[in-house]
Amino acid sequence: MCAVNQQSALLANLKIIVGSEHVLTGADVRARSTHFWDASPLEALAVVRPASTAETAAVVRTCHAAGQAIVTHGGVTGLVDGNRSNSQDIVLSLERQRDIESIDTIGRTITVQAGAVLQSVQQVANDAGLQFGLDLGARGSCTIGGNLSTNAGGLSVLRYGMAREQVLGLEVVLADGTILSSLNQMLKNNAGYDLKHLFVGSEGTLGIITRAVLRLRASTPAIETALLGFERFDQITQTLACLDQGLGGSLDAFEVLWQPFYELNTRPELVGSTPPPLAPNYPYYAVVEARGADTSRCKALFQATLEMAIENNLIVDAAIAQSSKDRSNIWFVREHIDLALKHDPVFVYDISLPIASMEEYIRKLQACLEDKWPGVVLYVYGHLADSNLHILIAPPAHKELTSEEKMHWQSYSNSLVYEPLKELGGTISAEHGIGLLKKEYLPLSRNREEIQMMNLLKKTLDPQNILNPGKVVSG
Amino acid sequence: MCAVNQQSALLANLKIIVGSEHVLTGADVRARSTHFWDASPLEALAVVRPASTAETAAVVRTCHAAGQAIVTHGGVTGLVDGNRSNSQDIVLSLERQRDIESIDTIGRTITVQAGAVLQSVQQVANDAGLQFGLDLGARGSCTIGGNLSTNAGGLSVLRYGMAREQVLGLEVVLADGTILSSLNQMLKNNAGYDLKHLFVGSEGTLGIITRAVLRLRASTPAIETALLGFERFDQITQTLACLDQGLGGSLDAFEVLWQPFYELNTRPELVGSTPPPLAPNYPYYAVVEARGADTSRCKALFQATLEMAIENNLIVDAAIAQSSKDRSNIWFVREHIDLALKHDPVFVYDISLPIASMEEYIRKLQACLEDKWPGVVLYVYGHLADSNLHILIAPPAHKELTSEEKMHWQSYSNSLVYEPLKELGGTISAEHGIGLLKKEYLPLSRNREEIQMMNLLKKTLDPQNILNPGKVVSG
Repeated sequence: MCAVNQQSALLANLKIIVGSEHVLTGADVRARSTHFWDASPLEALAVVRPASTAETAAVVRTCHAAGQAIVTHGGVTGLVDGNRSNSQDIVLSLERQRDIESIDTIGRTITVQAGAVLQSVQQVANDAGLQFGLDLGARGSCTIGGNLSTNAGGLSVLRYGMAREQVLGLEVVLADGTILSSLNQMLKNNAGYDLKHLFVGSEGTLGIITRAVLRLRASTPAIETALLGFERFDQITQTLACLDQGLGGSLDAFEVLWQPFYELNTRPELVGSTPPPLAPNYPYYAVVEARGADTSRCKALFQATLEMAIENNLIVDAAIAQSSKDRSNIWFVREHIDLALKHDPVFVYDISLPIASMEEYIRKLQACLEDKWPGVVLYVYGHLADSNLHILIAPPAHKELTSEEKMHWQSYSNSLVYEPLKELGGTISAEHGIGLLKKEYLPLSRNREEIQMMNLLKKTLDPQNILNPGKVVSG
Repeated sequence: MCAVNQQSALLANLKIIVGSEHVLTGADVRARSTHFWDASPLEALAVVRPASTAETAAVVRTCHAAGQAIVTHGGVTGLVDGNRSNSQDIVLSLERQRDIESIDTIGRTITVQAGAVLQSVQQVANDAGLQFGLDLGARGSCTIGGNLSTNAGGLSVLRYGMAREQVLGLEVVLADGTILSSLNQMLKNNAGYDLKHLFVGSEGTLGIITRAVLRLRASTPAIETALLGFERFDQITQTLACLDQGLGGSLDAFEVLWQPFYELNTRPELVGSTPPPLAPNYPYYAVVEARGADTSRCKALFQATLEMAIENNLIVDAAIAQSSKDRSNIWFVREHIDLALKHDPVFVYDISLPIASMEEYIRKLQACLEDKWPGVVLYVYGHLADSNLHILIAPPAHKELTSEEKMHWQSYSNSLVYEPLKELGGTISAEHGIGLLKKEYLPLSRNREEIQMMNLLKKTLDPQNILNPGKVVSG
């Protein structure tokens, strides 16, 4: 049987499992985008849409028998090409497995199918007087399966931890189609190895997450937000320590912006006649937020704690939000990214490094960049309290760059950003994962033994290398 | 070469690695206890005490070449016979690797050798104005390596999570002596698989933890403690929800006692003329604690939140500690265990189950026990907010039981406690692990596919089955 016949036979079998209308081919495949950030037509042998765990397992079993590569799709909002497929891949989409199956308000857990959209999980939790401890910009599109398989970070890591810390139990389809159901509902379960951690953060290379039991938290309707200005970097770290202790568990966000990013996002062309919350001439800014149950208590504690930091000369200037509009304006300065991305070329990074090393690291990076590209713009901002910075590098472009030149510049920029991290014990990926885009740089953040162990796990759990092949590890 | 000569050669090689004085044999081995709770002489071919990771790796490499079983010892305070050795085992003790190597007060991490005693880590963190988020009764003896390899729980899980959640980076010696160094210091690091989770909670069966980077937290010097009395179980769960929300991240403990345990620990023979904090006639009690930075704020919030619960008829009676002596008296009632353990026989359990199922589960257990052993005493208490209960069962013993009868009774009791957990989605081990003691019951809490996966991991990482053989999995 030739390859084409094998593929026909495979597709015919998949149609029997999920129904013909759920095996998309040809134009139906190309009508989809590659991913959220790349509108080019999706490439795949077929998009298969199983309706259940059982159907997913049957699809995987069939592909396993045929040695067929599978790329799993959730919300496809990843940033590292972790779900890129080629014309010979089966894309397994979880879009028909979006149910929120149950919520336990006493045990404070929610059980969902992996295709459930993050925002819908947040909504069901909120409606029950609780909240889910994970939040990120793509909330309206990304799925729980994607959040868990990439160990998503986002806006609440300081308080609640990454996606990994929100999951109590997991159901996974293994490479041979075995259903590994490990749907623990309890905070504590030391009955043998905690298998879920193998799959959380493995980017679909070790198994396909189909269901999860997630932990819910007490709701925090009271929100206090402020924008702070600093003269020196050590004031930031001291303020973080002061707020973390003073706010006693209610500190929800501590996001830092280096001046150029603040200045960019407060330009009149962007915000019109609205004056910026603080003057744009401090070297550093922080957006800080506390959340609690009771508005007046939360406000009093927040103000008292900020006053203490001001009295101790840690904070030079502060704007405390007095309304939800104020709050939106403050968060806009942190979250707006479109203007920065208008630079062409612009290279985007998501790194972690010890907080104590950040000031010097950025200073050196700036110097190296200036040396190579005089007039380069360096934007730095991010989840400083989590050791995580986002960096945008925009070299001045005097002419249209060819795509080859652009790749060359990108590669140079990557070296400047990534290589110093090795010595500092930092990482080339804080929250976005490795996927395809960062794979060649993995040895800068992981040593030989770690990569050997990753490869060993991949070979053990997916000996045929059919699950998201080529991503993260060599397979 | 006969086996005895092989053993002599092995010991000679180990002496070259660690020095003769650190390979204990004969009477020096027997001078040690089996473990913290069993004073019988330790059995082992030798106790080997490497001074460093490099020496540990060399010891393991040598044992690997000889196919020699290794049982690792930290503080030896475990409760499931997880570090029991026989006369042919090498006991590898980490007692010479106790250093606290560094503390980063800005990044809020501490790097320690695995033999460091928990209390010494807590002390160094406290001295730096921070705190470590793990605490348990054995703090003066247990080690970080043991805490991590068993994924210890304890008294702060509700707020900070289990031992797993306190660790950022890990160094492990693998079964073949390879040093896997993965000493990440950051809250966020998504550069490939997060390998540390393989070793945390695997009870020394997949690798030997030698160093760790631990996360530190803001200190919480202000402590508020209360003992609460309840008429009905649903009042407990509603009070938990009320406190968890109302205290806004500062709820540190929510421990529940069923009446017989409270009554036992407030008897005059134990507490003398001191009146108990509350009358001993409520069906349920809870010890609750909030911790924060500021004493007056913490007190005001704690009182206001308790008042709200009282106004809503959730709490029937409450005693709020007004002094550290009051606090000790309240915690004594929760933590004192000696009187309960005076029963002979007495069977001790550490289980989890969904909170919503607890009332009915305990009621049924009581009925079954009464049916078998009229007059049986059932003590129930524990970390209810974490879904975790400790249970002590003391059948009335009218005569001296033979050890065979005792084992038979224990086995019957085990069935009554463990078997209903399967249907409820509970677990036979919440925080103590599996070791040897609970291994035969593992299939009640883990399904076939989960156990197959555990065995696959064991075979992959330790193909010769030399690391703590026979514990947790079959190997």
